[in-house]
Amino acid sequence: MSTKPSIPKGTRDFLPDELVKRDHVFNTIASVYGRFGFQKIETPTIENLNTLLGKYGDEGDKLLFRILNSGDFLSKVPQDVIDTKNSSLFSAAIAEKGLRYDLTVPFARFVVQHRNELIFPFRRYQIQPVWRADKPQKGRYREFFQCDADIIGSDSLLNELELIQIMDHVFSALGVPVTIRFNNRKILAGIADIIGAGKQFTALTVIIDKMDKIGITGVIDELKISGFSDEGIETVKAILLIEGDNAEKVDFLAGMIQNTNTGAKGIEEVKQLLKYLESFKAKNKVILDATLARGLNYYTGAIFEVTANDVKMGSLCGGGRYDDLTGIFGWEGVSGVGISFGADRIVDVMEQMQCFDLRNANTTRVLFVNFGGDEEQYALKALMQIRYAGIVAEIYPDPVKMKKQMSYANERKIPFVVIAGSKERENSVFTLKDMVKGTQEEISLEELISKL
Amino acid sequence: MSTKPSIPKGTRDFLPDELVKRDHVFNTIASVYGRFGFQKIETPTIENLNTLLGKYGDEGDKLLFRILNSGDFLSKVPQDVIDTKNSSLFSAAIAEKGLRYDLTVPFARFVVQHRNELIFPFRRYQIQPVWRADKPQKGRYREFFQCDADIIGSDSLLNELELIQIMDHVFSALGVPVTIRFNNRKILAGIADIIGAGKQFTALTVIIDKMDKIGITGVIDELKISGFSDEGIETVKAILLIEGDNAEKVDFLAGMIQNTNTGAKGIEEVKQLLKYLESFKAKNKVILDATLARGLNYYTGAIFEVTANDVKMGSLCGGGRYDDLTGIFGWEGVSGVGISFGADRIVDVMEQMQCFDLRNANTTRVLFVNFGGDEEQYALKALMQIRYAGIVAEIYPDPVKMKKQMSYANERKIPFVVIAGSKERENSVFTLKDMVKGTQEEISLEELISKL
Repeated sequence: MSTKPSIPKGTRDFLPDELVKRDHVFNTIASVYGRFGFQKIETPTIENLNTLLGKYGDEGDKLLFRILNSGDFLSKVPQDVIDTKNSSLFSAAIAEKGLRYDLTVPFARFVVQHRNELIFPFRRYQIQPVWRADKPQKGRYREFFQCDADIIGSDSLLNELELIQIMDHVFSALGVPVTIRFNNRKILAGIADIIGAGKQFTALTVIIDKMDKIGITGVIDELKISGFSDEGIETVKAILLIEGDNAEKVDFLAGMIQNTNTGAKGIEEVKQLLKYLESFKAKNKVILDATLARGLNYYTGAIFEVTANDVKMGSLCGGGRYDDLTGIFGWEGVSGVGISFGADRIVDVMEQMQCFDLRNANTTRVLFVNFGGDEEQYALKALMQIRYAGIVAEIYPDPVKMKKQMSYANERKIPFVVIAGSKERENSVFTLKDMVKGTQEEISLEELISKL
Repeated sequence: MSTKPSIPKGTRDFLPDELVKRDHVFNTIASVYGRFGFQKIETPTIENLNTLLGKYGDEGDKLLFRILNSGDFLSKVPQDVIDTKNSSLFSAAIAEKGLRYDLTVPFARFVVQHRNELIFPFRRYQIQPVWRADKPQKGRYREFFQCDADIIGSDSLLNELELIQIMDHVFSALGVPVTIRFNNRKILAGIADIIGAGKQFTALTVIIDKMDKIGITGVIDELKISGFSDEGIETVKAILLIEGDNAEKVDFLAGMIQNTNTGAKGIEEVKQLLKYLESFKAKNKVILDATLARGLNYYTGAIFEVTANDVKMGSLCGGGRYDDLTGIFGWEGVSGVGISFGADRIVDVMEQMQCFDLRNANTTRVLFVNFGGDEEQYALKALMQIRYAGIVAEIYPDPVKMKKQMSYANERKIPFVVIAGSKERENSVFTLKDMVKGTQEEISLEELISKL
């Protein structure tokens, strides 16, 4: 084989340095989820297509990676299907399984399938890759990770509070200052009601959702094109432009939509959440944002979105309350609320903010130079004790020239090198070289361990 | 949708308790790999089929999961291919990508593709799932994890030593007593030479490999059927039945095969490895086993296999030295050595040995009972401080009946419950109930944190 090996477009190899960064983000998220009592689950990469199809709209169905049935799959395709030459009919006949498109639908399937084994309210987190046959472009991959947490089987707004606390903890721990915005879809429904556009609720949310991209004039233009009344548009404009702190905003909104059923419920929920938020000193800004809409139709209550303060990059985390996620699998009326962190974007933001220091990462701390023979034996014994002490340590595997071994240490960014030649062995000491400062000293094994 | 949701056969959902066990095994392996200076990498789930095909034999090719090309894939299939109705020709025309079958071939592809970015000798570890369209059966899954470590670009037997140390560390840390067997394929080649069956080397290794299943008489029968000479069979028998410690075995083997080129090299390597092993007090038995052959043809030097001492279960870890892994991708003559842990089997062994104690697992340690109103606020403040102290804690999200909340704590196996009603709030104390002992006491927040 002479062609250069490659991987499918939109997929990535993770080299060690990249993985150290990504895992730092994953581990921080997992550890905060864990501290809040969320339990980790995993679902299979491969799901039956009847679990996945029809859950993401027609566009989503097209983006599913389908797995060819094994064996003599063609023998099971009726001749008339072959004759149509219709790829979509054909694929239904030769592919029964597909790759997970997100973690939400598999989670709904999981909850329904295991409802008798789970303890409700069930708080789960899940950090796994998903696949979409999307057009690859900068920052968009065909294989990428999602980091989801959901609480299912409880209406309490305490869950919303805890999810906001989790977002606050995670970004504080990562050292990324953010703004956490929240809203409530019932408030948006109330707005649609008062402008007499209840039936156009989805259109309204989709347009409002573009506010940060197209600005207020863009929103107004789109509302006009979609046939909203001038009076209605004025009302929406006033709401989108409200200023003040969270309490002032909620009072203003209450004044406008308190008389609609759904709107009043939304105001009540936001007030309760604000009361909860008072009990907790968030390290990041937590802002009620009436322009936040989040496109996904399944959200029915609180919605969240997080953006970085110092780097321009889309949403780093988002989520919301849905009243009927498991209904698609036959279990109606189970309320849940969840969030999802976008790990790739968070890594990108942290790169731009230069948050990563690989010299401090949990990689090799010390390299023993290999002199072969008895010196090698002397080094091996010390190495073993150093590793038992929990220190990440290596010996160069071959007794090659010192220069080559030092250059390996340098390229690997290993901060310390131990030189233990015949002189050191005779005196039962070790020469420790600090690769950053360039200094070196002769010390005992005990001193060596405590130094490292 | 009314049918009960399900997952494809041979795949698994991991519920929280199962994941705690599996992750304990993964984390132990990863932490030992890390301490020996191995760096983590990941490769994509999806590889180009031309990377995977032809690397696992005809049987392996059949077990690959293939991914249907996106879009109107049928339009690209020539009519004559459609007319053949040959599934295998057809699949080549409609599927260009497949799921990873193991971690070894993607790693070889990775090393060749990134050879200019990597620092050699390169020590990597990789813990990721692989997929095989095998017939599912007890203990055999279509999606399962491999936990591999390899050192590439170094001939030194120090690498073999370190891999044995890693196996020893991992199983000691997991509390599973094992026997680590090793051999050298060059010794097997030497044996084939002295019985004049050099050309039947592969047949010989395949038969010897069955020793633990079919016993010495089974091996002799199969050797006869395969046409080995009576004299040759007697020699093999003598070698397979050698007794004594490692040094005695190697002397016996040396006496027999020292005069063959490859055999002599094998003896030299084993002697060097034994010398290295002397410098290190293994916690488990490390045994030279002349019957160990390992079927895979790409091994050319040392080979390893680990079995549990107290539970009957196949190999828990295995590996060996290969002289030309990257040759399949055009980079010849790069030597490497690696091992792979079978996490599923290790979990099964630990289950049987009752090694897992979920009460001590890193899950929720304390549940706050929710009394609503001001008591809820009082509990929330304490909860936040407890979580900041790193303790995994929850509050029941709804102020429902005490009985329901206590039963949640019981089912979740949460060891402590905090009761903070109006009396506790007035006195600024908390009642801590020990769910195992059934005792309870009134204490301050500071005492609570130090207790937990």
